[in-house]
Amino acid sequence: MRNKTVSSIGEFGLIEIIKSKFTRLNNNKNIVMGIGDDCFCFNSGSNTICITKDMLVEDVHFKKNWITAKDLGQKAIEVNVSDIAAMGNVKPEYAFIGLGIPADTPKKFITDLANGFKAACNKYKMTVAGGDMVKADKITISVTVVGITKDNIVKRSGANSGDLIGVTNTFGDAGAGLALLYKHGIKYKYSKEERLLTAKQNNPIARLNEAQKIAKYLTSLTDASDGLYISIGLLTKDSDVGADIYTDKVPLSTDIKKVFRDENRRLNFALFGGEDYELVFTVPKSKAKIAKKFVPQITYIGEINSSKKVRYFHNGKEQKFKYLGFKHF
Amino acid sequence: MRNKTVSSIGEFGLIEIIKSKFTRLNNNKNIVMGIGDDCFCFNSGSNTICITKDMLVEDVHFKKNWITAKDLGQKAIEVNVSDIAAMGNVKPEYAFIGLGIPADTPKKFITDLANGFKAACNKYKMTVAGGDMVKADKITISVTVVGITKDNIVKRSGANSGDLIGVTNTFGDAGAGLALLYKHGIKYKYSKEERLLTAKQNNPIARLNEAQKIAKYLTSLTDASDGLYISIGLLTKDSDVGADIYTDKVPLSTDIKKVFRDENRRLNFALFGGEDYELVFTVPKSKAKIAKKFVPQITYIGEINSSKKVRYFHNGKEQKFKYLGFKHF
Repeated sequence: MRNKTVSSIGEFGLIEIIKSKFTRLNNNKNIVMGIGDDCFCFNSGSNTICITKDMLVEDVHFKKNWITAKDLGQKAIEVNVSDIAAMGNVKPEYAFIGLGIPADTPKKFITDLANGFKAACNKYKMTVAGGDMVKADKITISVTVVGITKDNIVKRSGANSGDLIGVTNTFGDAGAGLALLYKHGIKYKYSKEERLLTAKQNNPIARLNEAQKIAKYLTSLTDASDGLYISIGLLTKDSDVGADIYTDKVPLSTDIKKVFRDENRRLNFALFGGEDYELVFTVPKSKAKIAKKFVPQITYIGEINSSKKVRYFHNGKEQKFKYLGFKHF
Repeated sequence: MRNKTVSSIGEFGLIEIIKSKFTRLNNNKNIVMGIGDDCFCFNSGSNTICITKDMLVEDVHFKKNWITAKDLGQKAIEVNVSDIAAMGNVKPEYAFIGLGIPADTPKKFITDLANGFKAACNKYKMTVAGGDMVKADKITISVTVVGITKDNIVKRSGANSGDLIGVTNTFGDAGAGLALLYKHGIKYKYSKEERLLTAKQNNPIARLNEAQKIAKYLTSLTDASDGLYISIGLLTKDSDVGADIYTDKVPLSTDIKKVFRDENRRLNFALFGGEDYELVFTVPKSKAKIAKKFVPQITYIGEINSSKKVRYFHNGKEQKFKYLGFKHF
C-alpha cells in the first residue's frame, strides 16, 4: 500500500494532503475566507478582495472537437466569474490568463481564443491584467480573477436550520449538452433543442447580476459547478447542517425534456451532470419572496434542518443516490 | 502563410496577439502597472496589491530526473516571490497553487511537492490561500502570489540616462547547472562545485530582502528570470533608453569558473542561461554607493544612456551577440 498513486487516493484525498500542510498557516487576521470556498478573500482597507483560480486542461475538461476556441476563451472567464458571483455582491475587476500551448497550435486558434477572452472580459468590464504563456503538450488555460467588494461576502458555511434552499434557472442542461457533444462532436446537425443544450455546456453564463441582486438576503451561497448534488453536500457540510431536497422541484428546461425522454436520465444530469454554473443558496423563509422578486428565475427546492444528513425525496418518497458525477482522477 | 502555427510566430508574436486584444481595456484608474512588468499592480485604499503568476510544465520547464518533487515545490514558490521582489519593497502575503497531475503520479511525489510548497511559504510567512487540482498528462504547476505594499512600486520602465546598471550576486550558475543536469541527471555523483551549480538551478532563492532594502534608491527594477541579456533588453526598451554593458564586469561564481574552463561558454551562460533570479536594476550614480552598502552583493555592470541601443563591451572592445537563450516555442 506504500506505492499509492493519485488515481487510487482520488481528488479529495489529494486536497487533504495539500490542505494538511497548510492549515497552521491560516492565522492572518486579514483573511476573510481561506481554503475551501469558491474564492479566497482577504481584507485590504475598506475593501474585501476575492480571488479565484480555475484550470482547464485539454482532453480532461474539454476536447477541441467539442468546443470552438472562441467559446473556450469565453467559458474560461465565465467559470471564474461564476466563482466570484458565488461570494455575493462582488465586482470582478481583473483577469490573469495563463496559457499552456502546444507548438503546433494554429495561430487562428490563439486569435479565436483571445477573442473569446476579450468578449467575456468586455462583458464584465474586467481588465486583463497579465498572464503567462508557456509551451505544453495539451492546451492548458489557467485563469485567475480578482473581484472587489465593500460588502460582506456570503460564505458557503452560513446556512441555518429552517432556511429554504434556492437555485437559479434550470439544471442538467450542461451535462446533457456534454453527452450530445461526446456522441456527435461539435459539427453535427443538431435540432434546435439539442443545440440549446450544447450551448449550455459551451457558453455558460455566470449568474453575477443575480448574485449581486440577492446577496444581502442570503445566509449561504455557492455555484453548482460540480453539480447540484455536490454543491448541496458541500454547503450543508460547511454549515454543519442537514437538508431535505425535493428532486421533483429541481427546475428542468423544456429542451432537456424534449431531447431526453427518460425521467431518471434527466434527473441524473440535473444532480450529477455538473457545469450548470447556477447559484445554489440558502435564505431565511422570511426573505424567500423578496429574493424571488428580484430574481424571478429562482426555484426553492428544499429546506435546511439540523439533522446533518441530506435526504432526497421524489414525489414524497425518499430516494437514495449513488454519486454518478465526474471523477477528477 | 495563412496556416501559421505557434512555433512559427514565436512567444513574442503570441504575446502581441493577446496584448493587442486588451490594450483598450487598460483605462482603470486604480491600475498602477498593467500587462508587461513582473507583476500586475493595483491600488486598494492605501495599499498597492501586486499579483504574479507563473506556470511550470513538466518536460518544458523541468524534468522529473532533473529535480526532486520537494525542490520543485519550493522553486515554484521562489520564482513567483522573485517577481514580487522585482516590484521593490513588497511583502508576499498569499499563494494560490494550481496543480495539474497525471493519474499515475505516486502519492509520495504529491506529499514531497506539498512539503516543498510549505517550506517556501513558511520561509516568507505566506499563507496558502487556495488553489485548484485537476488531472493532466504532464505535471503542471500554476502558482499565483499576492504581495502587498504601502510604498511606491519600482517599475521596469523608470531608468534614466546616466543611471548605473546593477545586479545582485552571480550570473550563469543556474544555466550551467541545467547543462549538467541535462547531461547527467539528478543522481550523478557531482563534484562540490558542480553540485553548487545544480543547486542554483533547482533551489533558486528570490532576492526579496535585497529588493526591500534598496527599493527606495532605484529608478527601475526587474529580475533576471529569462537571462541577463533579455532583462537588460526589456528594461531599456520599457524605459526608452539605451545602455553600455561591460561583460567583463558581469559577476561569475568561483564554481562556474572551476567547472567551465571556456570563458565564452561561461559568458553565454551568464547572458543567456536564464533562471538566475537575481535582481537587475538601475540607480542614479549618487545612490550607487549606499545601495551597495545595504546589499554588498551588488555589482555595477554598465550605464544607461539616451541612445536606445544596448551595446556590449568586453575588455573595452564592442561585442555583438546573437540571442542564444531558451526558446519558449
